[in-house]
Amino acid sequence: MDPRAQVESLLRPDLRGRTAYGAPQLEVPVALNTNESSYPVPEVVASAMARAVAQVARDLNRYPDREFTALRADLAAYLSRGGVSVAPEQVWAGNGSNEVLLHLLQAFGGPGRTALGFTPAYSMHPVITTTTGTTWVDGMRGVPGAGRFDLDVATARAQVREHRPDVVFLCSPNNPTGTALGLDVVEAVYEATTGLVVVDEAYAEFARPGTPSALTLLPGRPRLVVTRTMSKAFALAGGRLGYLAGDPAVLDALRLVRMPYHLSTPTQTLARTALAHADLMLETVGVVKDQRDRIVAELTAMGLSPVPSDANFVLFGGLADAHATWEALLERGVLVRDVGIPHYLRVTAGTPTETTAFLDALAALVPTHAGAAP
Amino acid sequence: MDPRAQVESLLRPDLRGRTAYGAPQLEVPVALNTNESSYPVPEVVASAMARAVAQVARDLNRYPDREFTALRADLAAYLSRGGVSVAPEQVWAGNGSNEVLLHLLQAFGGPGRTALGFTPAYSMHPVITTTTGTTWVDGMRGVPGAGRFDLDVATARAQVREHRPDVVFLCSPNNPTGTALGLDVVEAVYEATTGLVVVDEAYAEFARPGTPSALTLLPGRPRLVVTRTMSKAFALAGGRLGYLAGDPAVLDALRLVRMPYHLSTPTQTLARTALAHADLMLETVGVVKDQRDRIVAELTAMGLSPVPSDANFVLFGGLADAHATWEALLERGVLVRDVGIPHYLRVTAGTPTETTAFLDALAALVPTHAGAAP
Repeated sequence: MDPRAQVESLLRPDLRGRTAYGAPQLEVPVALNTNESSYPVPEVVASAMARAVAQVARDLNRYPDREFTALRADLAAYLSRGGVSVAPEQVWAGNGSNEVLLHLLQAFGGPGRTALGFTPAYSMHPVITTTTGTTWVDGMRGVPGAGRFDLDVATARAQVREHRPDVVFLCSPNNPTGTALGLDVVEAVYEATTGLVVVDEAYAEFARPGTPSALTLLPGRPRLVVTRTMSKAFALAGGRLGYLAGDPAVLDALRLVRMPYHLSTPTQTLARTALAHADLMLETVGVVKDQRDRIVAELTAMGLSPVPSDANFVLFGGLADAHATWEALLERGVLVRDVGIPHYLRVTAGTPTETTAFLDALAALVPTHAGAAP
Repeated sequence: MDPRAQVESLLRPDLRGRTAYGAPQLEVPVALNTNESSYPVPEVVASAMARAVAQVARDLNRYPDREFTALRADLAAYLSRGGVSVAPEQVWAGNGSNEVLLHLLQAFGGPGRTALGFTPAYSMHPVITTTTGTTWVDGMRGVPGAGRFDLDVATARAQVREHRPDVVFLCSPNNPTGTALGLDVVEAVYEATTGLVVVDEAYAEFARPGTPSALTLLPGRPRLVVTRTMSKAFALAGGRLGYLAGDPAVLDALRLVRMPYHLSTPTQTLARTALAHADLMLETVGVVKDQRDRIVAELTAMGLSPVPSDANFVLFGGLADAHATWEALLERGVLVRDVGIPHYLRVTAGTPTETTAFLDALAALVPTHAGAAP
């Protein structure tokens, strides 16, 4: 047998034939495909980061604080700015929110268990679920008479009751569609299940005014966890720091499955430096939200169908052939995301200049590319 | 139901009653319990690290290179220094070798599969195995007429043939016992199984002269992987960088289970900086080996029974009550490791001063603490 066939014959059976996650990492003038912040880390914070690493570098011969105590305190303080009160004992973190979600599924999923999500949502939810041997149940979005990508109490509750999952994923604001969930949906799902309810709030900081966080629902709900990330609003995608807030008993479960010392000293240090400059790091959120709203307005004016967005991106429909439009935009130096929904593409709200470049490129394409009704 | 009981009722059944990995992180004058390097990162490298972070900090708004291409090239070049030829396409890395091992078990283990290790070995091997739902098979060390902790061709082969595991762990030099394996054992195990063979060489750089690495066996053996870490000889435990060399087909399997962007930009950058200063980072390896040999010699002179070591630590027997000795050493400011083998303790070889402190403390205890034959 040739070497590759030998190795592939050893692969876990349910992984065979899969392809790895692979958003293209291309060098393009305007990269609007992975919902990063288009704004570099401010110079003053970058300098502080270099100083912080200089302070810890000599001691990198020692393992990091396995309990990342200081970082947990800083994350709790940050979450508590929104009027809720989150204690350090409620905060967990990982190398990106993907790892935090992996820890949750490792502890509360597994063979013979199921996790339900409402599709389309974050594409890694089913991947992380099945990676841990948990069965994925593909729930549906869409509210009769309302939006195709909406999720309301009745729709969500009915699916939870039908499938009786061990873990329910809610995503708010939802990726790739952009709209935040009503807290009534979170409450209803929590009541309808005896399992774990995970609200993925990766894009929470971009929500439109008046959109409350599921953090406000944590008291009295030990089976509820809310995940966050520093990759988006905090402009720290390269630093890999995701986190969650939940009951201390949930954290004790995660300690059973995390690899010891999973967060390096530099990771802890750099995230803390960013948190110490939170106001500065978040300064561009307002600009990004303005561009997001501008995209929604201008795409509507073009006759396309943007979905209402509480995130730093916009999903828009009305394209005859979404992949053809994706390619045509790329030819013009603008990289957006084809999330696999026919007639739709997703675009990150970048700087005003990038947004203009995207809108100009798309406007030139609309006459020939607009097509199917959403 | 109280909140904790509610959460615990949701835990994966096989995790219930487990306790988390918990080597004590205590502030003590002489910490010799986790096989870290006692030598801080050299000033010149620490400065280079701060400069490297300064260079990438502005761009942390962007996701890291998911394929860590430059780091893989540097790791391949480092591994190729030993006379073997390792290509970047053969190198994988994670946040510590624990994560690399996790990726292996996620891809090649799983429910209904088994992994065999030869106990006592690295305590995380069974933990990582069972975390992925793989069944752990506790193989045994010990060669009649030779060392209690040795492993030879006949003993290893017989157990592999009996248990027919999907994954076999070999650990060389073995933790916590310290001795390296003969390559004949690796070859025999590889021939005796159709599964994956993982040689954990976390301590390879400390091996006594003439001890070959299993890297030399990689050509023509696609089911063999060799794991390494920068936590020990490279004095970078706080930077969290483990890696492996194996067939490119193995790497493709790992890409199916790793979380995208699992290695942060600073992690990649700092590891590369350390590798660029490899000679300097490894400069203290010789001193540590001398201290290791000194420990073996002096403990023998004290009438204790140290195990021959190719690592930066020594396992020694001959104690009446190992835990009592552990506590007595801690009272004297010396933290060593109680690895759970009756009558034995493990001590890291530190600086000459630390080693002296350990040996003096132990010498004072020996008259009352020496006891059971090994």
